[in-house]
Amino acid sequence: MQTHPIAQGNFRYAALADEIQDKILSGQYRAGEKLPSLRKLHSRLGLSISTIHQAYIELEKRGRVEARQKSGFFVKPLEKSPLPLPVKPVTSEPPIRVRINDLAETIVSDLQRPDMIRFGAAVADQELMPLKQLSRIAKSMSVDEICAGMALYDDCAGAMELRYALAKMMMGYAGSAAVDEIITTNGCLEAVNLCLRAVAGPGDVILVESPVFHCFLQLIEDLGMYVIELPGCPEKGMSPDAFESMLSNNRVKACLLNPNFQNPLGSVISTPGKKAVLEIAHRHGTPIIEDDIYGDIFFGPRRPTTFKGLDTTGNVLYCSSFSKTIAPGLRAGWTLPGRFYKRVMRLKLNSQLASPSTGHIVAARFIESGAYERHLRRLRNQIKNQVSAMSIAVAAHFPKDTRITFPQGGMFLWIELNKAIDAMDVFHTARQKGISFMPGIICSTTDRYRHCLRLSCGLSWSDRLEKSIAQLGRIVCALNKE
Amino acid sequence: MQTHPIAQGNFRYAALADEIQDKILSGQYRAGEKLPSLRKLHSRLGLSISTIHQAYIELEKRGRVEARQKSGFFVKPLEKSPLPLPVKPVTSEPPIRVRINDLAETIVSDLQRPDMIRFGAAVADQELMPLKQLSRIAKSMSVDEICAGMALYDDCAGAMELRYALAKMMMGYAGSAAVDEIITTNGCLEAVNLCLRAVAGPGDVILVESPVFHCFLQLIEDLGMYVIELPGCPEKGMSPDAFESMLSNNRVKACLLNPNFQNPLGSVISTPGKKAVLEIAHRHGTPIIEDDIYGDIFFGPRRPTTFKGLDTTGNVLYCSSFSKTIAPGLRAGWTLPGRFYKRVMRLKLNSQLASPSTGHIVAARFIESGAYERHLRRLRNQIKNQVSAMSIAVAAHFPKDTRITFPQGGMFLWIELNKAIDAMDVFHTARQKGISFMPGIICSTTDRYRHCLRLSCGLSWSDRLEKSIAQLGRIVCALNKE
Repeated sequence: MQTHPIAQGNFRYAALADEIQDKILSGQYRAGEKLPSLRKLHSRLGLSISTIHQAYIELEKRGRVEARQKSGFFVKPLEKSPLPLPVKPVTSEPPIRVRINDLAETIVSDLQRPDMIRFGAAVADQELMPLKQLSRIAKSMSVDEICAGMALYDDCAGAMELRYALAKMMMGYAGSAAVDEIITTNGCLEAVNLCLRAVAGPGDVILVESPVFHCFLQLIEDLGMYVIELPGCPEKGMSPDAFESMLSNNRVKACLLNPNFQNPLGSVISTPGKKAVLEIAHRHGTPIIEDDIYGDIFFGPRRPTTFKGLDTTGNVLYCSSFSKTIAPGLRAGWTLPGRFYKRVMRLKLNSQLASPSTGHIVAARFIESGAYERHLRRLRNQIKNQVSAMSIAVAAHFPKDTRITFPQGGMFLWIELNKAIDAMDVFHTARQKGISFMPGIICSTTDRYRHCLRLSCGLSWSDRLEKSIAQLGRIVCALNKE
Repeated sequence: MQTHPIAQGNFRYAALADEIQDKILSGQYRAGEKLPSLRKLHSRLGLSISTIHQAYIELEKRGRVEARQKSGFFVKPLEKSPLPLPVKPVTSEPPIRVRINDLAETIVSDLQRPDMIRFGAAVADQELMPLKQLSRIAKSMSVDEICAGMALYDDCAGAMELRYALAKMMMGYAGSAAVDEIITTNGCLEAVNLCLRAVAGPGDVILVESPVFHCFLQLIEDLGMYVIELPGCPEKGMSPDAFESMLSNNRVKACLLNPNFQNPLGSVISTPGKKAVLEIAHRHGTPIIEDDIYGDIFFGPRRPTTFKGLDTTGNVLYCSSFSKTIAPGLRAGWTLPGRFYKRVMRLKLNSQLASPSTGHIVAARFIESGAYERHLRRLRNQIKNQVSAMSIAVAAHFPKDTRITFPQGGMFLWIELNKAIDAMDVFHTARQKGISFMPGIICSTTDRYRHCLRLSCGLSWSDRLEKSIAQLGRIVCALNKE
């Protein structure tokens, strides 16, 4: 047995810790992965068991690994970003009539091609979804139940069983959400659609945080509305002061916000920040549509608060769905439209009468059984690890002047390239290599984010993904030199 | 055995036929019901078998009964209306900003109260729906299929299996409907909603046939559009000449029509009429949204043609669903938006991404198995008989100056009372007695139909329904005298 070079040094444990840390930071050991056992390293490196154990304890102190009882040591996700944060834009434009659909359509159709490595799609990998459990629930429905579900137009407010389960589920974070304040929808986007139409009409100005989820812009365009963008901080989201001055200087009809793990930034507005925003919006008589679809995918110890949970005025229209956490095909979304309840109900009734109930009842039973909470614990860990792996890969393969967000939840990384690079050039080249992602250009009505891109971390990390990020990195590097 | 009085007359068979006919016209013998056998009447009335047989043959000649091989004689539905047809209004107003929602909401919420005899609801009775068969199909879906359906956002155009089945099904009447021309929707109303938004915007004028389905008006109000009403003939629908002059004298952006078994009139625009309308609309560059939801419920020998099937220009946006024929809870609707395909797809994508697929796949398999055609044959007969029974009951219990439609399909009767009567007065009194129906006032933006009402014939006929119609009749008679 040959002695490992670092075995000769003085602080052998520290040198070993450094070596393992390098492997973690280069992505060789991945977040969530188990490190080799003490015995295995002992026989491989010729170091004493106690030296190796000391190295692992050192890595634990540095926040790189965690000990799990009787299981050994595991790589932890990154505790800080390997690259600097994106720069918050300071420019602000007047309200703009939205015209983004044509560009977005080309891009989004590429995101759906199954032959692509899809870093653009905002969904978790199928293998992270509890599909087997859900299908067992679906299979266990009785003939009588199925008949009852098909026989009638369902209550326009939605399946009582789901509303009941949601009311209980949201108790901790969305105020005293009562069953009769909830309206179920065909996914979160329908909820946002109904809420937007309930509070604003064509020609009205909607305030959004920028960069913004492109579907919001597309929806606003379809509704003939205008948009005003408030640039958000990559960590804390929009500042209440900037919000106040926006509302004072513009005739903003409503706000459409994503305060928890904003898509694409991943930012979270703090609880005091949310309270301040609520107070300002209420004072200006401006309703807030809150999209909380990523709120359950938090990486920290606690679920973030919501506008809804802090609101006492009915001014908040809360929207969410299970598309990111359980299964997009269930189309189980909902809204709590506060004082706009009647208008949202009318719009739902007049545009589709009722939602299909089967998928909604499956979701309800999944939550009620307690399985949703257990599933979320696993899902959060997995996505947190994937975000970590993706960050490390980007840091390893992209140019050194790249900036990147360090989200504490959700499933996106927002990447800022050198300002000289047009992410659409990267997009077109990557597309030929079978890789797709979301170019920043469609996250604004301006071309402010032309050098930015969004990567989704929903896919289970693998060597194939690592190689694709390396390839993306090479494309960016080549453009950097031009 | 006592001899029946008519046994002494000269044309005994004719007298017996008259007597049975009276019973049919008064509703004692109902459409679809089997008449007493020759033997039974023989022993009951003391008439010879051949006299009774002759009476039945006479009734067959008069179109009142039909002989079924080895089963006997059955009462046929009415061949002409027991009351005169409603009068076609001639007045015509300029385009009107729609404001109908508040009134409609009160009325519609009453229509849904389960404790009511609901003559207002536009649905067939649960026992007429193939719920058992559908639930068997749902139960037979494999875990893998269910998982696949839940795992992804479905193709925005909708489940391929349903689109395939629809393309085959519509072959006879909707042109060469190809799979990739079809977009599935959450019921017919969502299809109409998407199509309206694809062809027109706020402030635009939509032409409808009057009286009109109140949900169309509510939807148009929500979209901030104006409406212009073209009064339809209770039999033939709107006249192409009147249509031509409407388009020439107004800036009509689109037409929303219900050419087959119009809701509420039950009228059908003939094939030459449809061709003329198509040509006129095309010449004026005005798209036609065609709601064909009642097209499959025809009482005659053949399904009526559709605008879609006769169109060669792509100017027709066809909409339908299985809510009236199979099960409303499946939420299986679809549209063929012709040359507006891309715009409808975009609106669907941006407002809800995808439809839930389970119910749609169940519908697809039901059609593909051939069960839909068999089911329709039964359903048409049943609804035709129910329409007949309802007409007879109205003729028996309503004032003599009542007018009524004689629809050849669909499931409604449109009733015109004496002009002095306000159907809302009838509505409020009937409501206290636990009976609801659709007052005509919400079928127009004007108060042109204040003395009219719509009765749905979806409910299986029974003594209880007969008594409720009698009660309605008494309420109307009492108001007639005031």
